[in-house]
Amino acid sequence: MESSSALTLSQLPYVYPTIPSTNKNYPFWPASKRRSSQLSTRLQCNKMFVPGFGEATPEAKAAKNLHNFFTYTAVKIVASQLESYNPEAYVELMEFVDKHPLDDGDKFCATMFRESSRHKNLALRIMEVRSAYCQKDFEWDNLKRLAFKMVTDSNTRLMRDYVSETSRSETEK
Amino acid sequence: MESSSALTLSQLPYVYPTIPSTNKNYPFWPASKRRSSQLSTRLQCNKMFVPGFGEATPEAKAAKNLHNFFTYTAVKIVASQLESYNPEAYVELMEFVDKHPLDDGDKFCATMFRESSRHKNLALRIMEVRSAYCQKDFEWDNLKRLAFKMVTDSNTRLMRDYVSETSRSETEK
Repeated sequence: MESSSALTLSQLPYVYPTIPSTNKNYPFWPASKRRSSQLSTRLQCNKMFVPGFGEATPEAKAAKNLHNFFTYTAVKIVASQLESYNPEAYVELMEFVDKHPLDDGDKFCATMFRESSRHKNLALRIMEVRSAYCQKDFEWDNLKRLAFKMVTDSNTRLMRDYVSETSRSETEK
Repeated sequence: MESSSALTLSQLPYVYPTIPSTNKNYPFWPASKRRSSQLSTRLQCNKMFVPGFGEATPEAKAAKNLHNFFTYTAVKIVASQLESYNPEAYVELMEFVDKHPLDDGDKFCATMFRESSRHKNLALRIMEVRSAYCQKDFEWDNLKRLAFKMVTDSNTRLMRDYVSETSRSETEK
Protein backbone atom coordinates (compact mmCIF):
# COMPACT_ATOMS: atom_id res chain seq x y z
CA MET A 1 0.00 0.00 0.00
CA GLU A 2 2.88 2.31 0.82
CA SER A 3 4.27 2.20 -2.71
CA SER A 4 1.07 3.69 -4.15
CA SER A 5 1.67 6.99 -2.38
CA ALA A 6 4.94 7.41 -4.24
CA LEU A 7 3.17 7.49 -7.60
CA THR A 8 3.42 10.75 -9.48
CA LEU A 9 0.62 11.98 -11.72
CA SER A 10 2.73 11.78 -14.85
CA GLN A 11 3.14 8.04 -14.31
CA LEU A 12 -0.59 7.46 -14.67
CA PRO A 13 -2.26 6.79 -18.03
CA TYR A 14 -4.58 9.24 -19.77
CA VAL A 15 -7.66 8.55 -21.86
CA TYR A 16 -7.20 11.81 -23.74
CA PRO A 17 -4.61 11.97 -26.52
CA THR A 18 -1.22 13.37 -25.75
CA ILE A 19 -0.02 16.49 -27.52
CA PRO A 20 2.39 15.79 -30.42
CA SER A 21 6.05 16.25 -29.56
CA THR A 22 6.34 19.29 -31.83
CA ASN A 23 4.17 21.19 -29.35
CA LYS A 24 6.46 20.67 -26.39
CA ASN A 25 6.46 24.34 -25.46
CA TYR A 26 2.69 24.37 -25.03
CA PRO A 27 1.74 21.07 -23.44
CA PHE A 28 -1.79 22.23 -22.61
CA TRP A 29 -2.47 24.86 -25.26
CA PRO A 30 -5.16 24.08 -27.87
CA ALA A 31 -3.45 23.90 -31.26
CA SER A 32 -5.86 26.19 -33.10
CA LYS A 33 -5.52 29.07 -30.63
CA ARG A 34 -1.77 28.79 -30.59
CA ARG A 35 -1.41 28.86 -34.34
CA SER A 36 -3.79 31.71 -34.92
CA SER A 37 -2.56 34.28 -32.44
CA GLN A 38 0.39 33.13 -30.40
CA LEU A 39 3.13 32.58 -32.98
CA SER A 40 4.68 35.97 -32.32
CA THR A 41 5.00 35.28 -28.60
CA ARG A 42 6.23 31.70 -28.90
CA LEU A 43 9.62 32.49 -27.46
CA GLN A 44 8.33 34.78 -24.73
CA CYS A 45 5.50 32.77 -23.20
CA ASN A 46 5.18 29.09 -22.49
CA LYS A 47 2.48 29.30 -19.85
CA MET A 48 -0.83 27.49 -19.94
CA PHE A 49 -3.71 29.46 -21.43
CA VAL A 50 -6.22 30.48 -18.72
CA PRO A 51 -9.57 31.43 -20.28
CA GLY A 52 -12.56 33.24 -18.92
CA PHE A 53 -11.10 35.76 -16.49
CA GLY A 54 -12.42 38.72 -18.45
CA GLU A 55 -10.04 41.64 -18.24
CA ALA A 56 -8.57 40.57 -14.92
CA THR A 57 -5.67 38.14 -14.62
CA PRO A 58 -5.84 35.19 -12.21
CA GLU A 59 -3.33 37.09 -10.05
CA ALA A 60 -5.67 40.13 -9.89
CA LYS A 61 -8.60 37.89 -8.94
CA ALA A 62 -6.53 36.24 -6.22
CA ALA A 63 -5.32 39.67 -4.99
CA LYS A 64 -8.93 40.85 -4.75
CA ASN A 65 -9.80 37.82 -2.61
CA LEU A 66 -6.76 38.43 -0.41
CA HIS A 67 -7.75 42.10 -0.11
CA ASN A 68 -11.12 41.07 1.38
CA PHE A 69 -9.34 38.56 3.59
CA PHE A 70 -7.03 41.31 4.91
CA THR A 71 -10.06 43.46 5.78
CA TYR A 72 -11.61 40.52 7.62
CA THR A 73 -8.33 39.95 9.48
CA ALA A 74 -8.04 43.68 10.30
CA VAL A 75 -11.54 43.64 11.82
CA LYS A 76 -10.50 40.71 14.02
CA ILE A 77 -7.29 42.49 15.05
CA VAL A 78 -9.06 45.77 15.87
CA ALA A 79 -11.85 43.96 17.76
CA SER A 80 -9.25 42.13 19.85
CA GLN A 81 -7.47 45.42 20.66
CA LEU A 82 -10.68 47.22 21.63
CA GLU A 83 -12.03 44.34 23.71
CA SER A 84 -9.53 44.92 26.48
CA TYR A 85 -9.20 48.71 26.60
CA ASN A 86 -12.35 50.15 25.04
CA PRO A 87 -15.32 47.80 25.63
CA GLU A 88 -17.86 50.35 24.34
CA ALA A 89 -16.17 50.64 20.97
CA TYR A 90 -15.80 46.86 20.90
CA VAL A 91 -19.57 46.38 21.36
CA GLU A 92 -20.24 48.99 18.68
CA LEU A 93 -17.91 47.22 16.25
CA MET A 94 -19.38 43.79 16.92
CA GLU A 95 -22.93 45.09 16.48
CA PHE A 96 -21.94 46.59 13.15
CA VAL A 97 -20.25 43.32 12.06
CA ASP A 98 -23.42 41.38 12.94
CA LYS A 99 -25.49 43.57 10.64
CA HIS A 100 -23.11 43.97 7.70
CA PRO A 101 -21.45 41.18 5.70
CA LEU A 102 -17.66 41.20 5.50
CA ASP A 103 -17.34 39.47 2.14
CA ASP A 104 -16.72 42.78 0.35
CA GLY A 105 -14.16 44.62 2.49
CA ASP A 106 -14.36 47.96 0.70
CA LYS A 107 -18.16 48.05 0.83
CA PHE A 108 -18.00 47.20 4.53
CA CYS A 109 -15.60 50.09 5.22
CA ALA A 110 -17.58 52.54 3.04
CA THR A 111 -20.81 51.72 4.93
CA MET A 112 -19.06 52.03 8.29
CA PHE A 113 -17.62 55.41 7.27
CA ARG A 114 -21.17 56.77 6.86
CA GLU A 115 -22.76 55.22 9.99
CA SER A 116 -21.61 57.79 12.58
CA SER A 117 -18.48 59.75 13.44
CA ARG A 118 -17.39 57.06 15.92
CA HIS A 119 -17.87 54.40 13.25
CA LYS A 120 -15.88 56.54 10.83
CA ASN A 121 -12.93 56.45 13.18
CA LEU A 122 -13.32 52.70 13.58
CA ALA A 123 -13.34 52.31 9.79
CA LEU A 124 -10.17 54.43 9.52
CA ARG A 125 -8.50 52.21 12.08
CA ILE A 126 -9.51 49.05 10.21
CA MET A 127 -8.17 50.54 6.97
CA GLU A 128 -4.87 51.46 8.59
CA VAL A 129 -4.52 48.01 10.15
CA ARG A 130 -5.27 46.15 6.89
CA SER A 131 -2.63 48.21 5.12
CA ALA A 132 -0.01 47.58 7.83
CA TYR A 133 -0.93 43.89 8.03
CA CYS A 134 -0.69 43.36 4.27
CA GLN A 135 2.60 45.22 3.92
CA LYS A 136 4.42 44.21 7.09
CA ASP A 137 2.94 41.31 9.04
CA PHE A 138 1.57 38.92 6.44
CA GLU A 139 4.16 36.25 5.57
CA TRP A 140 4.10 36.07 1.77
CA ASP A 141 6.87 33.51 1.48
CA ASN A 142 5.07 31.31 3.96
CA LEU A 143 1.86 31.59 1.91
CA LYS A 144 3.69 30.39 -1.20
CA ARG A 145 5.39 27.53 0.67
CA LEU A 146 2.10 26.40 2.24
CA ALA A 147 0.25 26.54 -1.10
CA PHE A 148 2.98 24.42 -2.78
CA LYS A 149 2.83 21.89 0.06
CA MET A 150 -0.97 21.83 0.06
CA VAL A 151 -1.29 21.02 -3.64
CA THR A 152 1.36 18.25 -3.47
CA ASP A 153 -0.04 16.72 -0.28
CA SER A 154 -3.66 16.90 -1.51
CA ASN A 155 -2.84 15.25 -4.84
CA THR A 156 -0.96 12.44 -3.12
CA ARG A 157 -3.74 11.93 -0.56
CA LEU A 158 -6.50 11.87 -3.20
CA MET A 159 -4.67 9.22 -5.22
CA ARG A 160 -3.74 7.16 -2.17
CA ASP A 161 -7.33 7.19 -0.86
CA TYR A 162 -8.62 6.07 -4.24
CA VAL A 163 -6.08 3.27 -4.62
CA SER A 164 -6.72 2.18 -1.04
CA GLU A 165 -10.49 2.03 -1.67
CA THR A 166 -10.22 0.09 -4.92
CA SER A 167 -7.68 -2.38 -3.46
CA ARG A 168 -10.01 -3.01 -0.52
CA SER A 169 -13.04 -3.61 -2.72
CA GLU A 170 -11.05 -5.98 -4.96
CA THR A 171 -9.89 -7.96 -1.94
CA GLU A 172 -13.50 -8.29 -0.74
CA LYS A 173 -14.65 -9.77 -4.06
CA MET B 1 -10.50 68.64 -3.41
CA GLU B 2 -7.22 67.36 -4.76
CA SER B 3 -5.38 67.92 -1.51
CA SER B 4 -7.73 65.59 0.35
CA SER B 5 -6.60 62.60 -1.64
CA ALA B 6 -3.04 63.11 -0.42
CA LEU B 7 -4.10 62.60 3.20
CA THR B 8 -2.56 59.60 4.90
CA LEU B 9 -4.48 57.66 7.52
CA SER B 10 -2.02 58.52 10.27
CA GLN B 11 -2.83 62.22 9.80
CA LEU B 12 -6.46 61.66 10.73
CA PRO B 13 -7.69 61.88 14.33
CA TYR B 14 -8.83 58.91 16.36
CA VAL B 15 -11.62 58.75 18.92
CA TYR B 16 -9.90 55.85 20.66
CA PRO B 17 -6.96 56.55 22.96
CA THR B 18 -3.47 56.12 21.63
CA ILE B 19 -1.16 53.56 23.18
CA PRO B 20 1.36 55.04 25.64
CA SER B 21 4.84 55.64 24.23
CA THR B 22 6.32 52.90 26.40
CA ASN B 23 4.43 50.40 24.26
CA LYS B 24 5.96 51.45 20.97
CA ASN B 25 6.82 47.91 19.96
CA TYR B 26 3.19 46.85 20.12
CA PRO B 27 1.11 49.69 18.71
CA PHE B 28 -2.04 47.56 18.48
CA TRP B 29 -1.45 44.98 21.19
CA PRO B 30 -3.84 45.03 24.19
CA ALA B 31 -1.76 45.83 27.27
CA SER B 32 -3.10 43.00 29.45
CA LYS B 33 -2.33 40.27 26.91
CA ARG B 34 1.12 41.67 26.30
CA ARG B 35 2.03 41.81 29.97
CA SER B 36 0.66 38.40 30.83
CA SER B 37 2.18 36.21 28.16
CA GLN B 38 4.33 38.06 25.70
CA LEU B 39 7.18 39.45 27.77
CA SER B 40 9.48 36.60 26.86
CA THR B 41 8.98 37.16 23.13
CA ARG B 42 9.23 40.96 23.23
CA LEU B 43 12.43 41.03 21.22
CA GLN B 44 11.40 38.33 18.77
CA CYS B 45 7.94 39.43 17.67
CA ASN B 46 6.45 42.85 17.06
CA LYS B 47 3.56 41.75 14.88
CA MET B 48 -0.08 42.54 15.55
CA PHE B 49 -1.98 39.85 17.44
CA VAL B 50 -4.48 38.08 15.15
CA PRO B 51 -7.11 36.24 17.23
CA GLY B 52 -9.63 33.58 16.36
CA PHE B 53 -7.94 31.58 13.65
CA GLY B 54 -8.03 28.39 15.72
CA GLU B 55 -4.98 26.26 15.04
CA ALA B 56 -4.43 27.63 11.56
CA THR B 57 -2.42 30.78 10.85
CA PRO B 58 -3.84 33.49 8.56
CA GLU B 59 -1.28 32.34 5.98
CA ALA B 60 -2.64 28.77 6.14
CA LYS B 61 -6.20 30.04 5.74
CA ALA B 62 -5.17 32.14 2.74
CA ALA B 63 -3.24 29.19 1.26
CA LYS B 64 -6.35 27.00 1.60
CA ASN B 65 -8.39 29.60 -0.31
CA LEU B 66 -5.70 29.84 -2.99
CA HIS B 67 -5.64 26.04 -3.22
CA ASN B 68 -9.35 26.00 -4.10
CA PHE B 69 -8.75 28.88 -6.52
CA PHE B 70 -5.99 26.88 -8.27
CA THR B 71 -8.38 23.93 -8.68
CA TYR B 72 -10.99 26.26 -10.18
CA THR B 73 -8.36 27.71 -12.53
CA ALA B 74 -7.15 24.21 -13.48
CA VAL B 75 -10.71 23.20 -14.41
CA LYS B 76 -10.93 26.26 -16.68
CA ILE B 77 -7.56 25.46 -18.27
CA VAL B 78 -8.43 21.78 -18.89
CA ALA B 79 -11.90 22.68 -20.24
CA SER B 80 -10.33 25.14 -22.67
CA GLN B 81 -7.84 22.49 -23.87
CA LEU B 82 -10.49 19.82 -24.34
CA GLU B 83 -12.94 22.14 -26.10
CA SER B 84 -10.88 22.22 -29.25
CA TYR B 85 -9.50 18.70 -29.55
CA ASN B 86 -11.80 16.46 -27.51
CA PRO B 87 -15.37 17.82 -27.54
CA GLU B 88 -16.81 14.68 -25.92
CA ALA B 89 -14.58 14.96 -22.89
CA TYR B 90 -15.31 18.70 -22.77
CA VAL B 91 -19.08 18.06 -22.58
CA GLU B 92 -18.53 15.42 -19.92
CA LEU B 93 -16.43 17.82 -17.85
CA MET B 94 -18.92 20.69 -18.16
CA GLU B 95 -21.83 18.42 -17.18
CA PHE B 96 -19.91 17.36 -14.10
CA VAL B 97 -19.07 20.98 -13.22
CA ASP B 98 -22.76 21.91 -13.51
CA LYS B 99 -23.71 19.28 -10.96
CA HIS B 100 -20.86 19.64 -8.46
CA PRO B 101 -19.78 22.83 -6.70
CA LEU B 102 -16.16 23.92 -7.13
CA ASP B 103 -15.80 25.75 -3.82
CA ASP B 104 -13.96 22.80 -2.24
CA GLY B 105 -11.37 21.73 -4.80
CA ASP B 106 -10.31 18.50 -3.10
CA LYS B 107 -13.89 17.31 -2.58
CA PHE B 108 -14.59 18.10 -6.26
CA CYS B 109 -11.61 16.00 -7.41
CA ALA B 110 -12.41 13.15 -4.99
CA THR B 111 -16.00 12.95 -6.31
CA MET B 112 -14.81 13.09 -9.92
CA PHE B 113 -12.32 10.28 -9.24
CA ARG B 114 -15.21 7.96 -8.30
CA GLU B 115 -17.67 8.92 -11.08
CA SER B 116 -16.28 6.74 -13.89
CA SER B 117 -12.91 5.74 -15.31
CA ARG B 118 -13.08 8.58 -17.87
CA HIS B 119 -13.84 11.03 -15.07
CA LYS B 120 -10.94 9.61 -13.07
CA ASN B 121 -8.57 10.50 -15.89
CA LEU B 122 -10.09 13.97 -16.10
CA ALA B 123 -9.57 14.42 -12.35
CA LEU B 124 -5.94 13.30 -12.66
CA ARG B 125 -5.43 15.85 -15.39
CA ILE B 126 -6.98 18.64 -13.29
CA MET B 127 -4.76 17.67 -10.36
CA GLU B 128 -1.65 17.70 -12.52
CA VAL B 129 -2.58 21.08 -14.02
CA ARG B 130 -3.27 22.72 -10.64
CA SER B 131 0.10 21.54 -9.39
CA ALA B 132 1.94 22.84 -12.46
CA TYR B 133 -0.02 26.11 -12.42
CA CYS B 134 0.68 26.77 -8.72
CA GLN B 135 4.37 25.94 -8.97
CA LYS B 136 5.28 27.36 -12.37
CA ASP B 137 2.73 29.67 -13.98
CA PHE B 138 1.17 31.62 -11.13
CA GLU B 139 2.99 34.93 -10.62
CA TRP B 140 3.50 35.16 -6.85
CA ASP B 141 5.44 38.44 -6.96
CA ASN B 142 2.69 39.96 -9.06
CA LEU B 143 0.08 38.81 -6.53
CA LYS B 144 1.98 40.58 -3.72
CA ARG B 145 2.45 43.75 -5.78
CA LEU B 146 -1.24 43.85 -6.76
CA ALA B 147 -2.39 43.27 -3.17
CA PHE B 148 -0.16 46.14 -1.92
CA LYS B 149 -1.50 48.44 -4.63
CA MET B 150 -5.10 47.40 -4.00
CA VAL B 151 -5.02 48.19 -0.29
CA THR B 152 -3.36 51.59 -0.83
CA ASP B 153 -5.64 52.58 -3.72
CA SER B 154 -8.79 51.37 -1.91
CA ASN B 155 -7.96 53.27 1.27
CA THR B 156 -7.29 56.47 -0.67
CA ARG B 157 -10.47 56.09 -2.72
CA LEU B 158 -12.66 55.41 0.33
CA MET B 159 -11.36 58.54 2.08
CA ARG B 160 -11.58 60.69 -1.05
CA ASP B 161 -15.18 59.60 -1.73
CA TYR B 162 -16.17 60.37 1.83
CA VAL B 163 -14.51 63.79 1.86
CA SER B 164 -16.01 64.57 -1.55
CA GLU B 165 -19.52 63.64 -0.31
CA THR B 166 -19.29 65.65 2.90
CA SER B 167 -17.85 68.72 1.10
CA ARG B 168 -20.70 68.58 -1.41
CA SER B 169 -23.38 68.32 1.28
CA GLU B 170 -21.81 71.23 3.19
CA THR B 171 -21.77 73.39 0.03
CA GLU B 172 -25.45 72.64 -0.57
CA LYS B 173 -26.43 73.85 2.94
